[in-house]
Amino acid sequence: MESVTRWEPNARERLEKAAMELYRERGFDETTVAEIAERAGLTERTFFRYFSDKREVLFWGAGALQDLLTEKVGGAPDGSAPLDVVVTALESTSEMFEQRREFAGHRQALIAAHPELLERELVKLASLAMAIAEALRRRGVTDPAASLAGEAGIAVFRLGFQSWVADPKRGPLSQHIRASLRSLKAVTAGESPPTKKATRGRRVAPREARRKGSA
Amino acid sequence: MESVTRWEPNARERLEKAAMELYRERGFDETTVAEIAERAGLTERTFFRYFSDKREVLFWGAGALQDLLTEKVGGAPDGSAPLDVVVTALESTSEMFEQRREFAGHRQALIAAHPELLERELVKLASLAMAIAEALRRRGVTDPAASLAGEAGIAVFRLGFQSWVADPKRGPLSQHIRASLRSLKAVTAGESPPTKKATRGRRVAPREARRKGSA
Repeated sequence: MESVTRWEPNARERLEKAAMELYRERGFDETTVAEIAERAGLTERTFFRYFSDKREVLFWGAGALQDLLTEKVGGAPDGSAPLDVVVTALESTSEMFEQRREFAGHRQALIAAHPELLERELVKLASLAMAIAEALRRRGVTDPAASLAGEAGIAVFRLGFQSWVADPKRGPLSQHIRASLRSLKAVTAGESPPTKKATRGRRVAPREARRKGSA
Repeated sequence: MESVTRWEPNARERLEKAAMELYRERGFDETTVAEIAERAGLTERTFFRYFSDKREVLFWGAGALQDLLTEKVGGAPDGSAPLDVVVTALESTSEMFEQRREFAGHRQALIAAHPELLERELVKLASLAMAIAEALRRRGVTDPAASLAGEAGIAVFRLGFQSWVADPKRGPLSQHIRASLRSLKAVTAGESPPTKKATRGRRVAPREARRKGSA
C-alpha cells in the first residue's frame, strides 16, 4: 500500500533464521547477503531494508534492548539502590530472551569465533552500560556511582547470559543473572572464591571445601 | 648499522608528540600521516615502522599495559582476594601514567569526541579485562569470579582514570583508583549514593549537602 515494494510477512525473522542457518552451515565469512535473501525467499533489497550488512543480523536487537533497559531504569521506585535498579531492569529482559535460547547459543558461538563480531558485541555492551548510566543520572544518581552501576550491571548480565546459554539444566535467565550478581557482590566484598589451587594443600575452610565439591 | 634505514632517536616519542599537536590544532580527521611524519622530522616509512595508522598513535601503549597487569596479577601473594589482586596491579601502573597526565587528558578529549576512537578504546579495555581474568584463572580463580573481577577492575580503573585526568588538585592516579574502588564497593553493597534529587526536598544529610555544593 504505502510503497511499490511488496510487504513480506515476518521478513526480519525469516532473514535472521536464514542467515543463522547459513552462518552455521558455511561459516560467517563465506555467506553472502544474496544467499541469505535467497534462502529466506526474499530479495536483497528487502534484506537491506532491515539490516545494513550481514553482521547486523546478529545485533539488530540491541536498540530495543537499550530502550527497554533505560525505560525500566527510569521507572524504578524512588530511592532504590542503583545496582538493584539496574539488575532488576536486566532481569526484566529475561522474557524477551527466554524464547530465543537456541538462537542465543548459536549467536554466542559465532561471536566467540570471530574477533570482529566480538568487537562489535563488546562495543554494543559498552554502549548499553553507558545508556544505563545515563538513565541513572537522569534519576539523580551521581557519578562515579552511576557509571559503575552501569558497568557492573552489564558485567553481571554478560556473565549471567553466558552461564544461561551453557546451562544443561536450562534454568531461567533471571536466575543466572541473580547468581552472577551474587558472585559480583562476593568479589567486591573482597571474598576469595574457592580456587583450584586450594585443593593443592592450602588452607581450605570447611564451608568453602563443601561448596566446591571435588573441583 | 643494522639496516639501510637510519635509526632515529626517540622516533616513537617524536611521532606521538607531533601527532597529538596536529590532532589538537587541525583535528584528528584532518591530519594525515605525512603531516605527522613531517612535523616530527621523520619519514612516513618511519611512522609505519611504529604505528599501523594514525589512530594507533593513541593506543600503542595498550600492549605494554596488558603485559604489566598480567605480570602483576600473576605475581600477587598467594591467597589474596581477586579484586584486591586486580586493583593492586592497576595501581602499580600509576607511575607509568603519572608523567603523562597532560597527554592522557588530551587523549581522553580526542577519544570522547570521535566515536570510532571511543569504540577502539572500549575494545582495548574489554581485552584488558579478559587478559586480567585469564591471569586470575591461571592463579586458580574460577569463573565467574575471575571474569567479574577483571571487568570490575577495569571499570574501577576507567572511572578512576577519568577523575584523575579531571582533578584540579592533581592528586595521584593511585588515589583516584582507590576512591573509585570504594565507590564500586558501595554500589555493589547496595548503598544509594547521594542523588541530585535529594536537594529537591528529600532528606539530605548535612555532610552530603556540603560535599555536593550547590548542584
